[in-house]
Parts: sequence; structure tokens; C-alpha cells
Amino acid sequence: MEKKLPPNHEHIDSEMIKLEVNLDNMSGEWLGYVMDLLFDAGANDVYYTPIYMKKNRPAVLLQLLCAKGKLDKMKAILFSETTTLGLRYYPLSVHRLERTFTEVITKWGKITVKEGVFEGESVQKSPEYEDCRRIAEENGIPLKKVYEEVWKEINQR
Amino acid sequence: MEKKLPPNHEHIDSEMIKLEVNLDNMSGEWLGYVMDLLFDAGANDVYYTPIYMKKNRPAVLLQLLCAKGKLDKMKAILFSETTTLGLRYYPLSVHRLERTFTEVITKWGKITVKEGVFEGESVQKSPEYEDCRRIAEENGIPLKKVYEEVWKEINQR
Amino acid sequence: MEKKLPPNHEHIDSEMIKLEVNLDNMSGEWLGYVMDLLFDAGANDVYYTPIYMKKNRPAVLLQLLCAKGKLDKMKAILFSETTTLGLRYYPLSVHRLERTFTEVITKWGKITVKEGVFEGESVQKSPEYEDCRRIAEENGIPLKKVYEEVWKEINQR
Amino acid sequence: MEKKLPPNHEHIDSEMIKLEVNLDNMSGEWLGYVMDLLFDAGANDVYYTPIYMKKNRPAVLLQLLCAKGKLDKMKAILFSETTTLGLRYYPLSVHRLERTFTEVITKWGKITVKEGVFEGESVQKSPEYEDCRRIAEENGIPLKKVYEEVWKEINQR
Amino acid sequence: MEKKLPPNHEHIDSEMIKLEVNLDNMSGEWLGYVMDLLFDAGANDVYYTPIYMKKNRPAVLLQLLCAKGKLDKMKAILFSETTTLGLRYYPLSVHRLERTFTEVITKWGKITVKEGVFEGESVQKSPEYEDCRRIAEENGIPLKKVYEEVWKEINQR
Amino acid sequence: MEKKLPPNHEHIDSEMIKLEVNLDNMSGEWLGYVMDLLFDAGANDVYYTPIYMKKNRPAVLLQLLCAKGKLDKMKAILFSETTTLGLRYYPLSVHRLERTFTEVITKWGKITVKEGVFEGESVQKSPEYEDCRRIAEENGIPLKKVYEEVWKEINQR
Repeated sequence: MEKKLPPNHEHIDSEMIKLEVNLDNMSGEWLGYVMDLLFDAGANDVYYTPIYMKKNRPAVLLQLLCAKGKLDKMKAILFSETTTLGLRYYPLSVHRLERTFTEVITKWGKITVKEGVFEGESVQKSPEYEDCRRIAEENGIPLKKVYEEVWKEINQR
Repeated sequence: MEKKLPPNHEHIDSEMIKLEVNLDNMSGEWLGYVMDLLFDAGANDVYYTPIYMKKNRPAVLLQLLCAKGKLDKMKAILFSETTTLGLRYYPLSVHRLERTFTEVITKWGKITVKEGVFEGESVQKSPEYEDCRRIAEENGIPLKKVYEEVWKEINQR
Repeated sequence: MEKKLPPNHEHIDSEMIKLEVNLDNMSGEWLGYVMDLLFDAGANDVYYTPIYMKKNRPAVLLQLLCAKGKLDKMKAILFSETTTLGLRYYPLSVHRLERTFTEVITKWGKITVKEGVFEGESVQKSPEYEDCRRIAEENGIPLKKVYEEVWKEINQR
Repeated sequence: MEKKLPPNHEHIDSEMIKLEVNLDNMSGEWLGYVMDLLFDAGANDVYYTPIYMKKNRPAVLLQLLCAKGKLDKMKAILFSETTTLGLRYYPLSVHRLERTFTEVITKWGKITVKEGVFEGESVQKSPEYEDCRRIAEENGIPLKKVYEEVWKEINQR
Repeated sequence: MEKKLPPNHEHIDSEMIKLEVNLDNMSGEWLGYVMDLLFDAGANDVYYTPIYMKKNRPAVLLQLLCAKGKLDKMKAILFSETTTLGLRYYPLSVHRLERTFTEVITKWGKITVKEGVFEGESVQKSPEYEDCRRIAEENGIPLKKVYEEVWKEINQR
Repeated sequence: MEKKLPPNHEHIDSEMIKLEVNLDNMSGEWLGYVMDLLFDAGANDVYYTPIYMKKNRPAVLLQLLCAKGKLDKMKAILFSETTTLGLRYYPLSVHRLERTFTEVITKWGKITVKEGVFEGESVQKSPEYEDCRRIAEENGIPLKKVYEEVWKEINQR
């Protein structure tokens, strides 16, 4: 089921890489910036974990997931923008659900709902965060009210 | 608005204490046990935060909230069950919403919903976790399906 | 030294999988529930790590270890019970010590002690937590007193 | 030395509040949103700490610092936008350095440098992050090169 | 029971301060260094907590406990050695157990055991880490073997 | 580009191992000790991550990186010095920059600067921590002043 199918069908992708760097001589200020650059360059995910290193140093583990073909690009960003002298990485498999998108009409406007399908069955339905955020801001209502409205509509059907 | 009102009205309680202990010579196994004892003895909340102490020690900060009148009981448990030689604490105020409870009928049975009221307006509605868990287990359905069902009912009204 | 030996001999198991999910749109309440389900379904270990994801989201990394043959079962639980649209995993080796079990008689009753043997030499001796917990509760004594009693007995021999 | 002086002189402010909420039934997605709202409403700082609560729940401690006069505004946002039924808070003192701002001319343009003065002596000099970020993006250069350039200029004098 | 008694009796000290700083523009390398300086200057405890700040910054919360009379000294170190422009602090009470010290003779030499006494009853007995570490290193034995030996001796009595 | 080149040239090392242990029945005190032993025995890196395990246990994930040839040595230390009955590990690749060392003369003495070279271009320059620390201590000046002085010199050239 690999690689030939369009990406929105359920599939297992065995061409993914996890890349890791330990950072104990770089400030949080720069780390916030690097995250954006990595996403812009095509990382599938980037996240930080607090770690404790030698000599009593609270530090940060940067991890990212990317396609094998993006590895060199990610390395170039990390060596240019962080203070590390080394990177480590290893391959992994990713099992992705089929994703479908529908629209829900609320009293404040349309909101896209992303649905995940596992072996033919719908298992996840989640309102798109950016749609909900925009509507909450434009209408001066709590974000959770927007989600509640969408959940009501979704579950109605 | 203090102390005379029954506890389920919105009120500010200025007779609360936060108690803290840093633990670097005690295992996680014992910490899981202590949490239960403290709740049983009347702590309002108990939670753990990962901290980093001297000599490269990953450690745990135990924090608990309790009424002033419970302080001695909490101290006795902590000195008996943990390895600490000292405890610290300070007073704080707690603003609690009015709480009301209603029941929602789902296809699998009744579920209690806790509602929070802030200055006369309903701001939170959350299904009781233990009800949802029991129903999920008894019916062999995902927990999130149970919550979704309750949200639909709540938001309908 | 693989696979043919009964599991309580020292061995290296190269048929293990680590499975990971990043969760930024799911509450802690549900995560406590999922952990139990995964253990019940045969996960060797399940644990949570705090991570920091894009858009200022504090999130949780769920990791689990299981035998290759359990992978599909774990996937089914994670896709049904969490909000994720993707899972990642990779193989790893596990080196497990030989485990032997002995009983220690304390003044409050029997407690099982698990012993780990590395290359023929006893390197770990740890009292079973559930035995110690039960005795502490039944006798109204601090958990650490129970452990101390067991250590005295163990080290006597 | 309190309150009458303009805020950019060194002073001790004893009219500050720290407000805390434990959140175990709310997703990271919403937490990222709430942080922005609190800053927009005048919080001096907002930050998240990973905590572990009862029933195996990984959770988040939201903490914010604000002036006493802002407390009601912060409460209203937290009760509307989070899922909590209670908030806790206590007073604290803040010692703030005198802050002065100077400009450094680099080959890519002007960058503001914030200086902290403690008892009459300059103790901190830090380039404004937003200036550095903008210059890095506009010129396609690593952020750290921009900081290095500013440090060279600052230390020259 | 305050202040007049020698410090090794059980007492409640209400003259303690907790001091806090959020650090998002300083590296872990420097933080390891600052911890030592603060202990050398008389801090009772110093520890780091991982926090998440605005603009996707993983950061560190430095907390320290000190006597009121040490506050100015601690401030001077923090303003000189960290990058912060502000510090916050508040008073708290510390309940300290009576501490007594005894010596245990093991086959490798003497080890001091610190004992904690709560309301006249011995509740904690812990071998001094530095003694155990030295013996483990000098004799080439695992640290845990040294502790086990001490526990056997302690519990014998 | 593998293995034949001296280690200070840029290279990709595919003979590295990551080793992991979850520890929930061992104190922070011992963990600080084990870290040193592992570094002394040739680990390339060792670091701790806070995790949350079953039965409400705050615990620690120990991770280390080492060459394949060191794996047995690391296992022996971990089985002797920690309380674990099992270890897990998997191979990974490490991309290391070319490292060159130069000296910078400051008013307080020489400081070594480590430079990282990525595809022929200098991307990192960092003062050696131990040099800076020694100079700060000997001269009674803040550590950050020492770094600032070095950055000025480095960037001058």
C-alpha cells in the first residue's frame, strides 16, 4: 500500500526519518524561531522535549519528522541556525489514516472538519483549529463555544 | 462572599494552603502511592512537576492544595511516607465557581454533567469522567464516543 | 540466545517495536484511560513525555513498547481512543535479565522479591510493589517501613 | 522606591499577583490560543509547566503574572476560555531593573538593544528579538549571525 | 518554636523566601554554572523546572529558597549572571525536622546516617550520599550495594 | 565518507547506538551518580527526560548514545548501577561537523574556541565552557562577561 497512492488514502510510509539534536548552549528565543523555519522547509512535525544534561544543564531535545528526501535540507537548517556540532537520525514507518474534509455550517459561518478513516471506518472528526480561531476572534466568543457548536452539528448527523 | 455560603456557590476561599516538597532521594513507585494517601486524607489537589536539582539529579516537586485546617494531617503523611526532612508552604486564595449537576440520558444510560457558573452565567459543562469511563468499559466503546454523545445532548438544549 | 528460551532466562529480544504518537488535541483525562487499555491489550510498557509543539501548544508524547505481533492491536486502540491521524514506529532490541522470584517473611506476612540476574550474577533485588502496598494498607504503616523491613531481610542472607 | 516612579526606573512592585490553574481536561490546541488572549489583556507573563495529576493524567499548569488591578480581567478570560472550575492566586513582589534602549547599526539596518541597569550599573544588554528576526528573514541569513553581529557592535564600545 | 532554637531542632521558620526567574534567552550551559554560585552564596535550595513561554520558546524556571537576610545577595547574583530584567519573590514557611547524625560501620568504612525526627519520633534515616559515593568509587563497587549495606546495618538495630 | 577519516573531519557515523531505560524505582540521587560513570566509560552523551508511567509514577527516561563497540560496557554499568531488569536499544546515524580549535586572547588569558565546519563553511563558533568558567572564577567576574569578551574577539576577525 506504499507510495503510489495519493497521500490522503490510508497508507504506511516507510520512507520517513526522525532527526534529533540535544541543545544545551542555545536560548529558547532562538528555538522558537527555528521551529518555524523547519516547518516552512517541509518538516512533517517538529517538537521540543525538556531534558537534563551533564553539568547540571537543563536543555532541550529538538526532534523532527521528515521524508527521506528532505533530510539534507533539514540538516542544513539545523547546522546553520542552531549551535550543534552533530545530528542523529534513524528511519521509521508512519501509518496515516485516510483524511476527508467536510464543511459544517454554524451560525457564525463555515468550519472545515477533518475526518480520519481507519480501515474504512470513521474514527476521528476534528474541527480545523484555524477556522475556529478565526471565528472566535471575529465574533468575540470563547474558542470552546465554537468547538461545542461544531461538535453538536457533527454529532447530529 | 466568604466561608458562610455552602461550598457549591461561587465564592473566594482565602483559607487555603499550598504545600511543597522537593524529592530527590525517593522512587516514583512510592510517589504514586503517596498521592492516593493525600487525596484520601482530604487534599483538594496533589500534583507532580519534574524538576532538576543539584548534582545532576532529576527529581520531583510534590505540590498539594488543602484547607488550613488540614495542614497538620498533610504534614504527618508527608513526613511519614516520603524521605524529606523539610516542607514549605504559603497561603493562597481560591476562586471557585458555582457548581450544578444535571443528568444527560444517552443510549447507554445516564451520565452526570458538571456545570460551572461564573457571575450567574454558565461557562463550563463537563461530563463526569467516572460515568463516561464506566459506560465505555461496559459497552466496549471508545471513551471519546461517549463524550461525543454527551456533548451532542448538552449542546442540543 | 533468541526466542527459543523461556522468557524468564536472560535473553535479547529483537522482535520488539516502539510506537509513538504526538497528541496536542486531546485532554489528560482521556490519556489516563488509554494507558490502562494499552496495558490490558498486552503492551510491555506505556509512558508519557511532556513535549512542546507548534502554535504554543503544550502536548504529550505517548510511547509504547510491544512485541511485533501486537502492533496491529495497539494501532487499533490508538486510532479508536486517541485523536491522532497518524502513528509512527520502529524496531528495537530488548536485553532482559533472568528473573527469579523468592519470598521474604516479614512480621506482617510474606512479600515476593524479584531478582534480576545478569550473566549469572544477581544484580537487582526488588520487593514487589503490590505486596508492599497491600501490607502497608492492611497494617496502617508507612510504605517505606515495609520496604526497609524487606531490605533488612534480603541483605541478611 | 515604589509605584510613583515611571516604570522604566529600577523599582520593586509589591502589587503583583501570580495566578495558577491546573488543566487536565483541555487540549494543547486551546492552550496555545489562551496564552495569546491573556497577553493581549495585559498579563505580564504567561507560561506552561508540565505536571502529573491523579488517575495517570499528564496535565498542564498555567501560571500568569499580572498587576492586582488586572486580576478580574484575567479571571474572566480563564473561566470563559479554559475548562477549570477554580483558580488560585497569591501576591508577590517583583524587582525590575531600569531599562534603557539604544540602537546599534549593523550592515543590515538598525537593531534596538535593551539594557538592564542594576543599582546604577549596566548588567544586561540584549538585542530585541523581533528586530533580529525581521532582519534574518529579510536578508535570508541565520538568526544567530544577526545576534553575533550585534554582540560585536555592543562589545566594541 | 521559632528562631531562638538551634537549627537542628524541629522548628518552623517563617522567615524564608522563594525567589523565581523565567529564563528564555539564556543557555543551559550558563544555568549549570549559576546553580553552583547560588548554593555557594547560601541558598537553601536551587532547582530548575522546564516551562513553555510565548513564541514557542522552551524555557527554564529557576527557583530558589533562601533566608530573608540573603535575598539581596541572591538578587545580585541573578542580575549579574543571568539575562533577566526582573525577579519575583514571596515569603513562605518551612517546617524542618530535628536532624541527628549517627555513624554506621560497614566493611568498607564509616558512613554517616542522617536521621529525621518528627514530633519525637524517628521518621527518616538516610545514608549521606557523599560518603556512599566515595566508598563506591574507592572500592569499585556499585553505589546501590553501598546503600544496601547501610540499610541492613540501620535496620538491624 | 565513513569511518576511515580521522574523527575531526565532517563525517557520517552509522555505527552508533541509542540505549534507553525507564526508571521508576530509583532515586534521583543515584541517577546523578550513574551519569558520571557512563561518561567516564565512553558514552558520547547521556541525558534524562521526565516521563509519566503507570500507577501515577513520575519517572525518568535515561538515554545514552555510544559506539556499537561500547554497548556491552554500557549494559554492564546500567545493570549494576540502576534497578532495571531490561534495556532497549537501536542503531542510528550521526552526522558530525568538522571541528577545529583556535585560541582567543582576552584580557584575562587564553580561551579555546571550538569551530564547526559544515560542507567547508564555518557555521558554529563556541568558546569552551571550562575555559570560560575557570576565568570567571579566578577573576571574580560574571560568566556572561567572559563569553561577551570572547564573542567580541571572534567576530572582530
